[in-house]
Amino acid sequence: MAVYTDVSDEDIARFVAEYDIGNVISFKGIAEGVENTNFLLQTDQAPFILTLYEKRVNPDDLPFYLGLMDHLSSKGLNCPTPIHGTDGVALRRLCGRPAAITSFLNGMSPRRIQPHHCAGLGTATAQLHTAGQDFDIYLGNAFGVKGWRPLFESCRSDANGVQPGLEQMIEVELDFLEANWPHHLPAGVIHADLFPDNVFFFPGQDDVSGVIDFYFACNDLLAYDLAICMNAWCFEPDNSFNVTKARNLLSSYGKVRPLSGDELAALPILARGASLRFLLTRLYDWINTPKDALVTPKNPREYINKLRFHQRVDSASAYGLSEE
Amino acid sequence: MAVYTDVSDEDIARFVAEYDIGNVISFKGIAEGVENTNFLLQTDQAPFILTLYEKRVNPDDLPFYLGLMDHLSSKGLNCPTPIHGTDGVALRRLCGRPAAITSFLNGMSPRRIQPHHCAGLGTATAQLHTAGQDFDIYLGNAFGVKGWRPLFESCRSDANGVQPGLEQMIEVELDFLEANWPHHLPAGVIHADLFPDNVFFFPGQDDVSGVIDFYFACNDLLAYDLAICMNAWCFEPDNSFNVTKARNLLSSYGKVRPLSGDELAALPILARGASLRFLLTRLYDWINTPKDALVTPKNPREYINKLRFHQRVDSASAYGLSEE
Repeated sequence: MAVYTDVSDEDIARFVAEYDIGNVISFKGIAEGVENTNFLLQTDQAPFILTLYEKRVNPDDLPFYLGLMDHLSSKGLNCPTPIHGTDGVALRRLCGRPAAITSFLNGMSPRRIQPHHCAGLGTATAQLHTAGQDFDIYLGNAFGVKGWRPLFESCRSDANGVQPGLEQMIEVELDFLEANWPHHLPAGVIHADLFPDNVFFFPGQDDVSGVIDFYFACNDLLAYDLAICMNAWCFEPDNSFNVTKARNLLSSYGKVRPLSGDELAALPILARGASLRFLLTRLYDWINTPKDALVTPKNPREYINKLRFHQRVDSASAYGLSEE
Repeated sequence: MAVYTDVSDEDIARFVAEYDIGNVISFKGIAEGVENTNFLLQTDQAPFILTLYEKRVNPDDLPFYLGLMDHLSSKGLNCPTPIHGTDGVALRRLCGRPAAITSFLNGMSPRRIQPHHCAGLGTATAQLHTAGQDFDIYLGNAFGVKGWRPLFESCRSDANGVQPGLEQMIEVELDFLEANWPHHLPAGVIHADLFPDNVFFFPGQDDVSGVIDFYFACNDLLAYDLAICMNAWCFEPDNSFNVTKARNLLSSYGKVRPLSGDELAALPILARGASLRFLLTRLYDWINTPKDALVTPKNPREYINKLRFHQRVDSASAYGLSEE
């Protein structure tokens, strides 16, 4: 939630002239997106989002992200559509950074998650997974099971300072997940960051109105995306698990893309993996974010609690579904 | 440039229901306004700005600010127009804070000031002063000549830490300004914060498309507003004074509201006062802003240089105009 790069009125007018989207009439930095700088760009034709990709996004991966949004939009998903310049190019440069203009999505992130939001999320996630099946670029998950150990090694010496015993807890969990990870499950394009910030609804409506921020999207197990969603949407602020929300999420997903018995059986371990992934990245950010940074790092402890919850789960029935 | 208060999707939907402006379809925090929290609010009718007034704005002064914007809008000035609820009330409360919705102004703040911007600014400032003449609420200038000494007393002990000798420099200047301030000049409503951030243009056009942020507006000497503008718009990044920009500012102003000989003669002392005012408030913020604040305080040294420049000026001819 920050504007890392200043763009002048002259720069933006010159940049917009490379598109066939009218003349810029307003241009404001918005507090959206932790990794990149986002501007709301109004032209005399429509509102757009201009994103400048900051250093945490690998420029080599941008063709995957923009291509994926193009692909999903063409399949009818409500996600930002990259706008191509008059030369056909969507990924350009502005103020020394990779930059792209995308369509503007209406809707709002829900703050207080209700069970009906989780049902809408399940449907949208299954639609995304289905629409992504024939996308032809491959990008591995940098924050998948293979990425966790190097991440852990880079910050393990500080773990016990965050919570006593955390270093050993992570090490044991990592050993378990690496030994038991269900690599054989259906895979494809996942969003990998479907937190409420990235999912829009219209007030009082059940259906998702749009999904944004595809900059962690990658190829991985489809059900792993659901595990990330469970962690992000189905725990209450007091860390208790809301099984109604989980059931809504999983059953709505299953109506669009039925989950196999293997996927259901693997949900507890996938949820442990999803907990460890965000525990590790939050731990890393917690340790490495300078005190004067524009963005306040998120507390990793929330994900210790989620990991402990899933460690005690032995079947998907704990998530409100029975394994048939 | 910060979002100090989080507003949920449910809060905003309830709040907007008190107006006849349609249903909210999008709602984003924007990086605009240092003192308040601003959101871009899109309804199915139009875009609006929602402002939550944070603690640096005195709630007692809000009827002046909102009434002034209403008044100036009704006179045809392009400034945010307060939107009244269905009960007729414009100033409401949201998330425990005073809050108001205003119209959305197109246009962009110029980053690299060109002489033509200063001409447009002069015209807009004179129009604002003229339109404000029959506004019937009075609000004294908390940052006017009478406010400088208490501000100085509150931070004088830290002044020399910012620049050696600064405490004495300010004290001597303050004595001079209090003894020689031209209280007899034409007075009225001034904006008092016409920095480029608060003045919008369309790219490549000379006329001001809109003026925002009236939360320092007050009653004071009209020509003092111009002195603030000269400091904010007519110095180059290397601190040199651009006399072409000043001439454009003052001569365009004079075509709408002619400056009297007394006002012209007083410009150097008004400009010294305008320099001291921002030197003092920046000094205060520099000393009192916590290191982890969302907003980085502006360096006060810039205004030491401006003050020194105006101390060496003995007539308005230094600003590109002759005293007739």
